[in-house]
Amino acid sequence: MGGDFAPANVVAGAIEAVLESHGRFSVVLVGQKERIEEEMQKPSNKTLIAGNESLSIANSSQIIEMDDSPTAALKTKRDSSIAIGLTMQKEQKVDGFVSAGNTGAVLSASTLILGRVTGVGRPTIGALVPTAKQPCLLVDAGANVDCRARHLFDFGVMGSIYVGAMLGRSTPRVGLLSIGEEDSKGNEVTLEALALFKKSKLNFIGNVEGRDVLKGDVDVIVCDGFVGNILLKFGESIPEFFKAKFKGFAEQSLLNRITALIARKGLRSVMKTLDYQEHGGVPLLGVNGVSIIGHGRSTPKAIKNMIYRAEEMVRQQVSTLIQNTIIEYSRIPGLQEMSVR
Amino acid sequence: MGGDFAPANVVAGAIEAVLESHGRFSVVLVGQKERIEEEMQKPSNKTLIAGNESLSIANSSQIIEMDDSPTAALKTKRDSSIAIGLTMQKEQKVDGFVSAGNTGAVLSASTLILGRVTGVGRPTIGALVPTAKQPCLLVDAGANVDCRARHLFDFGVMGSIYVGAMLGRSTPRVGLLSIGEEDSKGNEVTLEALALFKKSKLNFIGNVEGRDVLKGDVDVIVCDGFVGNILLKFGESIPEFFKAKFKGFAEQSLLNRITALIARKGLRSVMKTLDYQEHGGVPLLGVNGVSIIGHGRSTPKAIKNMIYRAEEMVRQQVSTLIQNTIIEYSRIPGLQEMSVR
Repeated sequence: MGGDFAPANVVAGAIEAVLESHGRFSVVLVGQKERIEEEMQKPSNKTLIAGNESLSIANSSQIIEMDDSPTAALKTKRDSSIAIGLTMQKEQKVDGFVSAGNTGAVLSASTLILGRVTGVGRPTIGALVPTAKQPCLLVDAGANVDCRARHLFDFGVMGSIYVGAMLGRSTPRVGLLSIGEEDSKGNEVTLEALALFKKSKLNFIGNVEGRDVLKGDVDVIVCDGFVGNILLKFGESIPEFFKAKFKGFAEQSLLNRITALIARKGLRSVMKTLDYQEHGGVPLLGVNGVSIIGHGRSTPKAIKNMIYRAEEMVRQQVSTLIQNTIIEYSRIPGLQEMSVR
Repeated sequence: MGGDFAPANVVAGAIEAVLESHGRFSVVLVGQKERIEEEMQKPSNKTLIAGNESLSIANSSQIIEMDDSPTAALKTKRDSSIAIGLTMQKEQKVDGFVSAGNTGAVLSASTLILGRVTGVGRPTIGALVPTAKQPCLLVDAGANVDCRARHLFDFGVMGSIYVGAMLGRSTPRVGLLSIGEEDSKGNEVTLEALALFKKSKLNFIGNVEGRDVLKGDVDVIVCDGFVGNILLKFGESIPEFFKAKFKGFAEQSLLNRITALIARKGLRSVMKTLDYQEHGGVPLLGVNGVSIIGHGRSTPKAIKNMIYRAEEMVRQQVSTLIQNTIIEYSRIPGLQEMSVR
């Protein structure tokens, strides 16, 4: 029931996913049964899923709205699709969970119901961002706004494991987002975090700057969720800015207008690389299980990609990997004694 | 003597400025006399300034290098061009100061030598950023990395005064950079700052998000210098990213190659709007006087624009305006009692 276009887009995306998967996995749609059935009975959907048994429904009566307060909603709406879906995973009835609903509620419910991986102070969300080369993981992407050094360090460890397992990069380069490359540059928290990273077993390349994000010479960029959220939303707004500027350029003369018309195809192709939908949701790292959070405006294609990503995380056992290696990666004298909350 | 191309670019920019100003102002070049004279004797420069009395030299023996520690350099190099130039302003021999040198040193020396405006806890630098509409001032652009709520609030007040005086916008819209539009969104410091802004006499429009920066519906965007620096450097790197992506597009086929060739002119025109050199340095706000800090890579054109900006700040009496109105703009019960350091 999550997202601005639920249940239509969720159902359509799930149908696409199971049709393309040829029985490799099945999908349980969690939500108000009648509304989901109604959606599945629509002529376009009905034909597609006739005879397909990879799609089923689990009923939940309540809906956490996009503007509900996460903590309040989790207390009062215990029969929400978010709570029911995650509880099914906790009870091992499903292996992963995907939602385009209230981000805060999915975050809190995932941590609460699935539980934190031992040794992880704060679960985090990592977003794959486009670069001039291969995508890079920005972590934290908005889950934790006020962070201590130890949290940033954990984000780097989990991000490194995720990129290693999911993108097959054997020793991911981890950078700490700061205001200069020199070790002396940063704010109080990043300066402290830098000292931890330098003593860790990660492939840590030091501070990286704002100008390094799009370059693609680093695999994991660590920052707090305040900076991460602002940077991601800024990045998402670039195509709109260029569209406006290019329109201004086109209006200057007939020749410019023709140039702009011809250039449009190239621009679209480049802008597409900045499109969040290609990437399909952000994973929550540091919980016992798989939880993927999608944009409220997720299209069917985005939902489908989120389901694929969840399946891959299950297959790669990312959560178990984090459990097993966070101690190893973070072997720093005195680190275990540091407060982790 | 400041910047990566000193004294060549500084001298060339100063010559351009005085030639175009037709005697409206004069420029004093502060630095090692022989090196500046040598630069001015170059044939290209010599002809341009023959008989022009608007350009003079003040000697200073020492140079603060780009990688010097600001505080250490200010102690040991008391005869640097930065120290001498600012002291001349303090002694009212000049009205404004412009440098492409060591940013930290210019910041510290300006605050130390010119002094802070009464009531301002921390002077700040504001950078004009391009948007889909008119430019907007991002403040703080990197001077203060760890800020308290009161500091953010002061940045908003000074930014509003600057935009009002320099860009002629009568009631500038001030927004606080955060992770959501709702009042409940933010980190500890921005939530506290939001409460101050809401009680102030500014034209405060509330929280703005990363996606609002390029839209142009706000005149002043307030953030700490850590976020500001990262965002600015990210923005500056966008043209490079597009160039790489467009190159990839062009290499896909002959048709794409032709499209890219035709599109180049339009792209250049759009990318130019993201060029820092068009804007010419960032002003330091909250000191008693005028101090403009330029990029280390400043071209002659950037230097010229910085000189023009300094002249405009002198003419608009921005520093006096801040002095006179910061109390008025910040009339909030209890604010005066809040610590300002």
